[in-house]
Amino acid sequence: MKSAAAIMSSFSLSTTTPSFKSYSSSFFSLSLPIYRCIRKPPVFSTTNRMFIVRNSSSSSSSGSSISAKPSSEMRKSKNNGKGLEQDEKVNALRDLFGKPGVNIDAYIIPSQDAHQSEFIAECYMRRAYISGFTGSAGTAVVTRHKAALWTDGRYFLQAEKQLSPSWILMRAGNWGVPNTTEWLNDVLAPGGRIGIDPFLFSSDAVNELKEAVAKSNHELVYLYDVNLVDEVWKEARPMPPNKPIRVHDLKHAGVDVSTKLSKLRSELTSNGASAIVISMLDEVAWLLNLRGNDVPHSPVMYAYLIVEMDAAKLFVDNSKVTPEVMDYLKTAGIELRPYESILSEIESLAARGAHLWLDTSSVNAAIASTYASACDKFLESLGSKSKGKNLSGVPSALCRNSPVSLAKAVKNDAELEGMRNSHLRDAAALTEFWSWLEEEMNNNVVLTEVEVADKLLDFRASQAGFVDTSFDTISGSGANGAIIHYRAEPDSCSVVDTQKLFLLDSGAQYLDGTTDITRTVHFGQPSERQKECFTRVLQGHIALDQAVFPENTPGFVLDAFARSSLWKVGLDYRHGTGHGVGAALNVHEGPQSISFRFGNMTPLLKGMIVSNEPGYYEDHAFGIRIENLLYVKEIDTPNRFGGITYIGFEKLTFVPIQTKLVDLTLLSAAEIDWLNDYHSQVWEKVSPLVDGSAREWLWNNTRPVAKP
Amino acid sequence: MKSAAAIMSSFSLSTTTPSFKSYSSSFFSLSLPIYRCIRKPPVFSTTNRMFIVRNSSSSSSSGSSISAKPSSEMRKSKNNGKGLEQDEKVNALRDLFGKPGVNIDAYIIPSQDAHQSEFIAECYMRRAYISGFTGSAGTAVVTRHKAALWTDGRYFLQAEKQLSPSWILMRAGNWGVPNTTEWLNDVLAPGGRIGIDPFLFSSDAVNELKEAVAKSNHELVYLYDVNLVDEVWKEARPMPPNKPIRVHDLKHAGVDVSTKLSKLRSELTSNGASAIVISMLDEVAWLLNLRGNDVPHSPVMYAYLIVEMDAAKLFVDNSKVTPEVMDYLKTAGIELRPYESILSEIESLAARGAHLWLDTSSVNAAIASTYASACDKFLESLGSKSKGKNLSGVPSALCRNSPVSLAKAVKNDAELEGMRNSHLRDAAALTEFWSWLEEEMNNNVVLTEVEVADKLLDFRASQAGFVDTSFDTISGSGANGAIIHYRAEPDSCSVVDTQKLFLLDSGAQYLDGTTDITRTVHFGQPSERQKECFTRVLQGHIALDQAVFPENTPGFVLDAFARSSLWKVGLDYRHGTGHGVGAALNVHEGPQSISFRFGNMTPLLKGMIVSNEPGYYEDHAFGIRIENLLYVKEIDTPNRFGGITYIGFEKLTFVPIQTKLVDLTLLSAAEIDWLNDYHSQVWEKVSPLVDGSAREWLWNNTRPVAKP
Repeated sequence: MKSAAAIMSSFSLSTTTPSFKSYSSSFFSLSLPIYRCIRKPPVFSTTNRMFIVRNSSSSSSSGSSISAKPSSEMRKSKNNGKGLEQDEKVNALRDLFGKPGVNIDAYIIPSQDAHQSEFIAECYMRRAYISGFTGSAGTAVVTRHKAALWTDGRYFLQAEKQLSPSWILMRAGNWGVPNTTEWLNDVLAPGGRIGIDPFLFSSDAVNELKEAVAKSNHELVYLYDVNLVDEVWKEARPMPPNKPIRVHDLKHAGVDVSTKLSKLRSELTSNGASAIVISMLDEVAWLLNLRGNDVPHSPVMYAYLIVEMDAAKLFVDNSKVTPEVMDYLKTAGIELRPYESILSEIESLAARGAHLWLDTSSVNAAIASTYASACDKFLESLGSKSKGKNLSGVPSALCRNSPVSLAKAVKNDAELEGMRNSHLRDAAALTEFWSWLEEEMNNNVVLTEVEVADKLLDFRASQAGFVDTSFDTISGSGANGAIIHYRAEPDSCSVVDTQKLFLLDSGAQYLDGTTDITRTVHFGQPSERQKECFTRVLQGHIALDQAVFPENTPGFVLDAFARSSLWKVGLDYRHGTGHGVGAALNVHEGPQSISFRFGNMTPLLKGMIVSNEPGYYEDHAFGIRIENLLYVKEIDTPNRFGGITYIGFEKLTFVPIQTKLVDLTLLSAAEIDWLNDYHSQVWEKVSPLVDGSAREWLWNNTRPVAKP
Repeated sequence: MKSAAAIMSSFSLSTTTPSFKSYSSSFFSLSLPIYRCIRKPPVFSTTNRMFIVRNSSSSSSSGSSISAKPSSEMRKSKNNGKGLEQDEKVNALRDLFGKPGVNIDAYIIPSQDAHQSEFIAECYMRRAYISGFTGSAGTAVVTRHKAALWTDGRYFLQAEKQLSPSWILMRAGNWGVPNTTEWLNDVLAPGGRIGIDPFLFSSDAVNELKEAVAKSNHELVYLYDVNLVDEVWKEARPMPPNKPIRVHDLKHAGVDVSTKLSKLRSELTSNGASAIVISMLDEVAWLLNLRGNDVPHSPVMYAYLIVEMDAAKLFVDNSKVTPEVMDYLKTAGIELRPYESILSEIESLAARGAHLWLDTSSVNAAIASTYASACDKFLESLGSKSKGKNLSGVPSALCRNSPVSLAKAVKNDAELEGMRNSHLRDAAALTEFWSWLEEEMNNNVVLTEVEVADKLLDFRASQAGFVDTSFDTISGSGANGAIIHYRAEPDSCSVVDTQKLFLLDSGAQYLDGTTDITRTVHFGQPSERQKECFTRVLQGHIALDQAVFPENTPGFVLDAFARSSLWKVGLDYRHGTGHGVGAALNVHEGPQSISFRFGNMTPLLKGMIVSNEPGYYEDHAFGIRIENLLYVKEIDTPNRFGGITYIGFEKLTFVPIQTKLVDLTLLSAAEIDWLNDYHSQVWEKVSPLVDGSAREWLWNNTRPVAKP
């Protein structure tokens, strides 16, 4: 999937050239560009992801499950037309500003949920509800007299359409547009009170926010007890999802939960921590070998997990826990707690003197602040009662990246096996799909981008172990393919035009693995320009696929390999080249990435999975992307200079690349060999899984090409 | 020149694999490697360079000029046998510890001079004098009872030979070897006083040092007035160099001094500074269009420069200033001051309320501390006398990288022209040299590595405008070629063996430019292994030479291009790929570099010059390096995606690459085209400058090759 979405969702980068800020080379101009140095390795930005979630009530009536619905239906269901009119909502929100215990001058409504999730359930889409703007990225800020919404270049048109005239659209990334805190510092009288829901911001984000508004003496007010948007939303608010949790089969998980917990505990001990709170939903799911169904595309459930030396507590809505899962958890020694009781447990941890490992880049400010206050309280009580006492029992926080993130990223053999197998079934579905689509096109059947995506879902759904799509399919014909984050809507999308390039980026969740693949095809006669661009993207794809490099190389070192052929003729693409992928988990995961964002020093380690997806996009004309998933493996090089291991990739994805789009005169002999070898592997691996016209299509599309 | 020397001179990296520290990929091992993040773009490490210099007296008797002596002579002259025996020196030094106004428990003697120079005059080689160890990198520490010397892997053998038994050799980079401060914290009783000469440490380095020894409550004692080693050295100490300064011709400099000063002043103003102190010798020389003769290889003179809005003061030994230079400086409005009066002028600047731009990575601690104290004094006086006064006149420091560094790195047309021309004359000298050497080898003449280097100097010296070598020639036959920093010594060097690879890395200073070139050749029949390695190094060289990339790309992004072909078979090299080069100035300059040290975010800008020098070294067997200098230029790409400029390189160096060493079956068609095109350019540009057998050699060595 467009790691673009991932990597560009930070406003500040969305409209700049890929690598670098503008830089004057003039004589004596000193100011070197300051590169965005990201402390937490960014796979996808955690700050401007999608929507918002917190399981604020334990109500357990039927939440809407969105799994595996056709795109057309899913999109319709997100349209919350009922209830208050847009401006009434904002006014109702303002009415709450003066309430006792609130007393604020402004309220910030971000896109985050309490877990920094990429995909969230409808009931948590507070920013979309209050502003009417339904794009995936945006922040709303409401003051007593103004309402403003920030979003990035992908969504300017959509926001213009969806926002009522009383909203100010802030085109983030455009020159001269202030960010939220700059704007607040400008419009509020000094000494203002700015309210936030502390569950919806990471601890790090809140600290940045606090510092920024302090410049105008504003105070950040944490409203723990109530989300003001929910107060306005009332009954119209959808119920939180409550689909049952399932156990992830050990044959796919590879390592049982007690082994994982015991290794985590060793890691805590060796770092001087005695407990950890895990709030990323995929980390909870991976660690416990559980899978959920609370959000579209990611098989996770809303939950927190606290692991101590002698206990592990899962904070989750009871209604999702089936008797089977209940037994499973009991056997694993994991206690159940209500989702809402997380803060009181955090307080209790401090009171018990725990040294708590906190990943402040993902753990929300509600948790971090509660722990900090409880520690202070503990110290105060010490001061009066037990001076000079042994201080080893004094609670303290260890602020570090979650150790689960890296452990999860390095796949074990069972996970790799599941990924390999699910990719072959996925390849079979795609073979059937492309064979079908080519025939439809040949028969001049008119199909929209959404209809095509729905049909692809049908083919995938008939594969064994299918669970869901792994993200919203990007199905873009012609100019729509140039919109990196394009999302075809049933009402407004284009037909798939046989005279234009067609870009299809899609993926699936299976019980044993997660897929993500992009192919770009032409059903008619591509132009020379299109062929040149496609060929250069392919050369970048091949260069990365074939790369061999010393162990411990960070991903960004390889990014230029994928761009080199485009650069030679002055072309480039404005997104990263590769993101991590979970095993039957999130399609975007960290900590590794392959990107021009040089701050991510995470090395590519044996067992990690990354996408390889260079592209090229010509505005208002066409888009090209070629994406396979790769896993990182040791290469048996004839030498081992430095006594170290050399690392490379092996492909997981086996679907033909359209050779019609390749200008063979541009390829080297080695590149042609790569293409032929790949197609011969595709035929060998996928042909046993398909028959009839699909098999014939596969045969035709895996024939070797020759240097002209 | 071996950017290796450059990039590996920091102890901590010298024995690690190129890119990265060791990193465990084990399950739950969280500790991601921390990469060395270098604040000041490192071209060559400024911490462990070579020797030590400070013009501590104004004595102006004849200093020893070392320019353009044959290597064999130069090396002999560095052997300071006379005077005290090694152990007597150390004891004499210890005797000074208790002197009034000194009172220290330890003294650190680094390799730096007061200007962070790479090459320094003999009179400043204090670490070599006190320890007896003459290698280019090392730090000596003497306590009342112990004496220890740190050096890196290049010099272990030499240090073992040269140190007397009373010295402890600290093999920096070896496992378990403490660094200087760890050792001091270990051997000194807590609360010790550690003396340093504050001129010999950068302000940043002293701050690090201070912090490190504070852990054991040690105090760092600045001994401003006297260098204790000089006190021991006494009359045996060579006189400071005092060769005359010359004006660098405007036709080579391109921009006159008043234009440079006026642009510098604008830069100061726009950054809120009112004065700057420049201490890097090449920055002083470049800014004033002056050249000196104080140290080998670099045409610079010992001096500081202070530029204010309405004045510019050059702190230099008067005896070096000829009447011509005196007139020139007067015309340019530059006042002369004694070199030793720098600190009093710094105090006076603070007293006048200057906002002083300080590059704390290069300006020494004596200057920085003096300014800080003077500012404090100013504030104190304010406190008593003029409370509530307008504070705009209060002095303050602006700590930033020197703006001259970048301005100097971006060459103007005249500088580029001089570099182009001097490279062609240098190529003519090398053509004559290689033609001569090949004939000698064919005639079975026995020549040592040093004799060969001396002969090369003869050929260069006969070229117009020749001034000096630009660094000590690396002339390594067989296994010596694998020692990246090899320095052949007349007494111990090898003969050039026709049955082995011969690596020759050399360069020259001309009036109009600076060169640096490495070629590796075989006079007999290379092995298949040698050919494969040479070919992969050549492929890396070609890949970097041909790279095209978006403007503002930092150099490190390109480093992997030069390694990719080696990596594919598990090979690599333990040094960077490219360093900046001055125009008729230092052969190593910043701020740009092309290296696996990812901290240097300086983009490669149009007009910069960099070396392209991948290599491969097989211990105890052979070394390969292929080095050209390139300048950075705009490429006229058919597209300009993002509305930006795309950047690439053009070669400055035109000397044949030995095709006998190339395995043509490994090269792509495009790589063979590159080689043939290069050789055709070499013939075209250099053949008019040579005749006779040299011309014949050039013809033979620039013939096209064909894919077998």
